[in-house]
Amino acid sequence: MTYDVDAIRKDFPILSRTVNGKPLVYLDNGASAQKPRVVIDAISDFYANEYANVHRGLHTLSGIATDKYEAVRETIRAFLNAKAEEEIIFTTGSTMGFNLIAYGWAMENLKEGDEILLSVMEHHANIVPWHFLRERMGVKLRWVDVALDGSLDPRTVINAIGPDTKLIALTHLSNVLGTVVDIAPIAAEARKRGIATAIDGSQAAVHMPVDVQALGCDFYCITGHKLYGPSASGAVYIRADRQAEMRPFMGGGDMIRTVAKDEITYNDPPHKFEAGTPGIAQMIGLGVALDYMTALGMENIAAHEAQLAAYAQDRLTGLNWLNVQGHAPGKAAIFSFTMEGAGHAHDISTVLDQKGVAVRAGHHCCQPLMVHFDVPATARASFGLYNTTDEVDALIDALETCHRLFA
Amino acid sequence: MTYDVDAIRKDFPILSRTVNGKPLVYLDNGASAQKPRVVIDAISDFYANEYANVHRGLHTLSGIATDKYEAVRETIRAFLNAKAEEEIIFTTGSTMGFNLIAYGWAMENLKEGDEILLSVMEHHANIVPWHFLRERMGVKLRWVDVALDGSLDPRTVINAIGPDTKLIALTHLSNVLGTVVDIAPIAAEARKRGIATAIDGSQAAVHMPVDVQALGCDFYCITGHKLYGPSASGAVYIRADRQAEMRPFMGGGDMIRTVAKDEITYNDPPHKFEAGTPGIAQMIGLGVALDYMTALGMENIAAHEAQLAAYAQDRLTGLNWLNVQGHAPGKAAIFSFTMEGAGHAHDISTVLDQKGVAVRAGHHCCQPLMVHFDVPATARASFGLYNTTDEVDALIDALETCHRLFA
Repeated sequence: MTYDVDAIRKDFPILSRTVNGKPLVYLDNGASAQKPRVVIDAISDFYANEYANVHRGLHTLSGIATDKYEAVRETIRAFLNAKAEEEIIFTTGSTMGFNLIAYGWAMENLKEGDEILLSVMEHHANIVPWHFLRERMGVKLRWVDVALDGSLDPRTVINAIGPDTKLIALTHLSNVLGTVVDIAPIAAEARKRGIATAIDGSQAAVHMPVDVQALGCDFYCITGHKLYGPSASGAVYIRADRQAEMRPFMGGGDMIRTVAKDEITYNDPPHKFEAGTPGIAQMIGLGVALDYMTALGMENIAAHEAQLAAYAQDRLTGLNWLNVQGHAPGKAAIFSFTMEGAGHAHDISTVLDQKGVAVRAGHHCCQPLMVHFDVPATARASFGLYNTTDEVDALIDALETCHRLFA
Repeated sequence: MTYDVDAIRKDFPILSRTVNGKPLVYLDNGASAQKPRVVIDAISDFYANEYANVHRGLHTLSGIATDKYEAVRETIRAFLNAKAEEEIIFTTGSTMGFNLIAYGWAMENLKEGDEILLSVMEHHANIVPWHFLRERMGVKLRWVDVALDGSLDPRTVINAIGPDTKLIALTHLSNVLGTVVDIAPIAAEARKRGIATAIDGSQAAVHMPVDVQALGCDFYCITGHKLYGPSASGAVYIRADRQAEMRPFMGGGDMIRTVAKDEITYNDPPHKFEAGTPGIAQMIGLGVALDYMTALGMENIAAHEAQLAAYAQDRLTGLNWLNVQGHAPGKAAIFSFTMEGAGHAHDISTVLDQKGVAVRAGHHCCQPLMVHFDVPATARASFGLYNTTDEVDALIDALETCHRLFA
């Protein structure tokens, strides 16, 4: 199969719109991805024809809704190659995923003085829940720096493991630098020592095939809206033996077996960790989005994006007034940069927007990384499966305009 | 304005479908309501034309998305008549709302031996989070029974307040009995004594005008998917002075001001209590749903449903082999029932489904209430703004078939 990006672009209605009179060049995929028509229609059709609450009704619509909704568990299991469906817990995204890990596993299993190891390039979703444990329980955070080129050697992480380390929390793919972290050796070493591993797959699962069994991690979070799926969809893979160590996180319907006045028993996983009426339509939409990606082929998507990354890297390197953060070998098509001269990241974004080019500016929910690189903020162009080399050119043209304005 | 239910029904595409060859008679609104075309289209149009992440981008689409998303805060503020927009915290529904109250307020402010007062007709969403505090902190749960007719006298609640009571957690409208609870005198007394009040408005906000300032409560939870809005949308009203007593619940992006390696500061409310990329499309859809209800008029919806309730009450009373739980004066159009003879609630639901009539069967996430009424499960017909007296008749016909089968 050839990867026909022009045909793919037609699947995404928003890509044919203009912004400020220019064709939209959407390079803010790291923040959120656009949705293909099949996902949008799946949601509409479900609401228009088949909607009902799940799990709780015996009538026809409830049965249809439950079947469609629960089928997504297998879709996600297959997407991540988890061993069992029960290891897939539905969430509203990685933020909820990490909070589930923090409240459900870490608060139950860590004590004062225990240590959580994390890298300086983590997203706030994989930092703030651990700060809660620091503030509330006296857990310590130990930070691993990335190398100058933004890479993170697994040995650096392994060497940083101390006697009190109980959890290693790492991104699989940095949302700012594009760095891919080689998780497998870290997870293997952690497992040997009884240390848990929580991996942020928010970006990785979008850009490359993911196999949680091959990674060998305990927790793996994904975010639906970055996976070309709906807002507030997502999942966290939790290895069965770690589930057994967890208490529930959210309380409500579905996650219980019996509720009495002074006694309560909980449902089996995965339901134990999913309270109340879930995001039914969104999870169904996410299933369609993953099917869409799988039909294109994750290897093909990765190959297409690697081509884009190489081309973008090459062209950006030609701009000697641009400072790109992160040059790790094999990095993904995510480019964070600052510009020499007066141009603040926010100004860059504003000028680019005038040319129809959507990039993000700010700290990208990665304040420790900004401190590490000693920048207040960066602009970031992040590519997706529908982007083209023409759009790289459009970005470069817009950046040159920027440079002329601010130099 | 006359309330034209036939015209209203045309706004809901699913209502024109058939189930088992019969026109759908959807009486499972207590579990979840159907969606009008304007809500479905708002979501599709947003994804197809305007989608981006919110709060974090400066480009055009992000600006459009942020404006649309944040405008819903004022819509909900007005819908509940809260004093300030900042008192509206977006959630995925009441389950998340009560967990936010439990983790954010109660775990921070209650200690071992403190007491939470709740009624026996609470939904599990307003029970399980309090069980967490019992299990984890030694907080006591004190239960108030409902009267034989399912009513709950505010004086009964006030009389049950003890010296250790720190929180009163009550439903505003029972999802099983239809009982409306007169919250205002309870909240007034609680406030006088410094006791917090958390009210479950999941059903009430759907069926009657709600004014949180008139109620005088501290917390008020609503669920979007019951309000004719999308899955995984909702909000909790939190009175400003209670917000000041809270720690954050979920950690992640947006809810922080600064994140360093060993220090963190939090954003101001409402963002302090909203972590990560939110349910952007869903909250926009919920705004449209509330606008739809407001355009019909909550008083008009309540009047229409009161008429349905009276008619249904009258016709159900004529079935002397049917045992309806709950006859509180002014009850909403929600009818829970069991049948004499062999008919289990699940069997009733299955037979009704053959006639196209969707009702729910089970414990309705209210196990303590089932124990109170000494029934394992009930069937429940719950009405919404688009139901008709013809549909009451269809329900009665189907129940008579049921009776003939099981008697």
